[in-house]
Amino acid sequence: MQRSLVDEVRSAIRNIPDFPVRGIQFKDITTVLARGPLFQRIIDHYVARYREAGVERIVAIESRGFVLGAALAYAMGIGLALVRKPGKLPYQTLRAAYDLEYGSDAVEIHQDAVLPGERVVLVDDLLATGGTAAAAVRLIRQLEGRVHEVAFLIELGELEGRMKLAGEEVYSLVTF
Amino acid sequence: MQRSLVDEVRSAIRNIPDFPVRGIQFKDITTVLARGPLFQRIIDHYVARYREAGVERIVAIESRGFVLGAALAYAMGIGLALVRKPGKLPYQTLRAAYDLEYGSDAVEIHQDAVLPGERVVLVDDLLATGGTAAAAVRLIRQLEGRVHEVAFLIELGELEGRMKLAGEEVYSLVTF
Repeated sequence: MQRSLVDEVRSAIRNIPDFPVRGIQFKDITTVLARGPLFQRIIDHYVARYREAGVERIVAIESRGFVLGAALAYAMGIGLALVRKPGKLPYQTLRAAYDLEYGSDAVEIHQDAVLPGERVVLVDDLLATGGTAAAAVRLIRQLEGRVHEVAFLIELGELEGRMKLAGEEVYSLVTF
Repeated sequence: MQRSLVDEVRSAIRNIPDFPVRGIQFKDITTVLARGPLFQRIIDHYVARYREAGVERIVAIESRGFVLGAALAYAMGIGLALVRKPGKLPYQTLRAAYDLEYGSDAVEIHQDAVLPGERVVLVDDLLATGGTAAAAVRLIRQLEGRVHEVAFLIELGELEGRMKLAGEEVYSLVTF
């Protein structure tokens, strides 16, 4: 069951050559989301993983992370918090910058998005270099949340994003 | 029950003055999403609305629409399709432009996101001027999908977004 879900997701992902730039093989998950029963099984898999863990909030990273995170929060009946690009969140925010190959970027979270002591699962679709997720972890820590695990649908193993998340529990359903 | 859900959502929405620009009172839904049981009741309300309608796919507009749309697709066990800003979707896309107060913008959909004849609910968080939703409706039509309804969480009635969606069924949980 577990094995077959992983295989099914892996084969449902569409490879897009040279997107967004030449030489990158993009993992397109829209072909996964298009299959309702498969999407349900994915979410239920995460629900089973976290149901007994005392998780109190899902934090989701813009914007494909919203898809997984919202369905998971709904299924678990717990609150959802959003990590977004700068300028998108309307209330008072904390900001964390992270390095890109050229330059830097940042993410924000509302200052009331996570309560002190809350046990949180951070969710995004893809673990690549890990910069965004690591910045989001810092934001959750600043709010005194406890990161139970950082969960992805897909991990690109060769990019070693786990190294940027050293010290965190990291879980990916499918690794390439 | 119905009435109390609307009241509860209305009072859970946070008003942010002068965001994103002076004179605009922004409706912040993060305070709704933060409350897990309330978010569940919202999604279950839409599920009840569409359960018997033969809806086959949810189409969600980037990016807060992803939050509602993904949870709804999960709850109904049907496929989810994404409408995004230009350049974000990796596969072959259709594009629809729409006018802004100054200039224009556009949204895209994958050309295989909706199948001919499919009955679709289009979802976004907020109906303001309606330009984005109207463009998304045109994309669904180009793919020969049938729009069962366009569903929002919030409608700003004075902006008359429904006029841009003339001919469509439009549903909003809360109207200001």
